[in-house]
Amino acid sequence: MMNVEHIGIAVKELENAEKLFSALFQSGPYKREIVESEKVSTSFFQINQTKIELLEATSSDSVIASFIEKKGEGFHHIAFEVEDIVLEMSRLQAEGFTLLGESPKKGADNKLVCFLHPKNTNGILIELCQEIK
Amino acid sequence: MMNVEHIGIAVKELENAEKLFSALFQSGPYKREIVESEKVSTSFFQINQTKIELLEATSSDSVIASFIEKKGEGFHHIAFEVEDIVLEMSRLQAEGFTLLGESPKKGADNKLVCFLHPKNTNGILIELCQEIK
Repeated sequence: MMNVEHIGIAVKELENAEKLFSALFQSGPYKREIVESEKVSTSFFQINQTKIELLEATSSDSVIASFIEKKGEGFHHIAFEVEDIVLEMSRLQAEGFTLLGESPKKGADNKLVCFLHPKNTNGILIELCQEIK
Repeated sequence: MMNVEHIGIAVKELENAEKLFSALFQSGPYKREIVESEKVSTSFFQINQTKIELLEATSSDSVIASFIEKKGEGFHHIAFEVEDIVLEMSRLQAEGFTLLGESPKKGADNKLVCFLHPKNTNGILIELCQEIK
C-alpha cells in the first residue's frame, strides 16, 4: 500500500542546511521549489528510493516558522505515498485518525497531499501524498 | 552510498503505538526486539524498502525516556545504511560532523551503528548503520 516518499525537515536557513546535507550525502539537492500556499521554500535530496525535503519558512506566519519557534529545527513530517489519496483519507478517518483538511491539497513536487493530526499518531505529523498524473 | 534504512519513533507505550501504526499501514510489526544496552524495547514495521522502528524505554534512565521527557513522543532518529561504517564515520568526522562514540556499537536488528550529534545536523539525530554479515 504505502512507500516512504519523503521525510520533511524544518530548517532555519535553507542554504546552510543544503551544504550540510550535501556533505552528508555526498551529493547536492536535485530540486528547489517554493510552495506559495504553504509559505515554504523547499529543497529535495534523493537518497535511493526516499527523498529528504528541507523546508524553510518564507514568511513569519508560515507553519514552518511556528514549528521552529515551538520545537526548534528538526524532523517535521513523514510522507507516505498512496495510490488513491481520497480513498486512503476515508479509510483512515474511519480508523479514527484526524485529517487536517477535508480534501487533498496541491503540495510540493507535483503531489496531492493531506496531513494527519499528530495528536492521534504519537506526535508524528504524517503526510499522505499521491502523484498528480 | 546511502539508503534510508529506518526511521525511529519514540513512544510512551509500545503496545498502543503498534495498534495505531498497524491501522495506518494495514499490517502489523514483523519483529519485536529488546536492546538491553540502550534500555529500549523496539518494534519494526516494513514499508516497502524502509522500516519504521518504534522505541519504548524499558527504564527511566533510557535515552528514550529522557527524550520523551524533554520533547514528547515523536521522531527520534533517521538511520542511513552504509557499506562501511568505519570509513563513513571517518569521512563525516573530517567533514566536521560530531560522532557520538569513537567506534560503532551493536544496535538493534543485527546492525553496527553510530550516531551523529544533532547539533551539527539541524536538530536531526542521524544514525549510520551497517548490517553485520
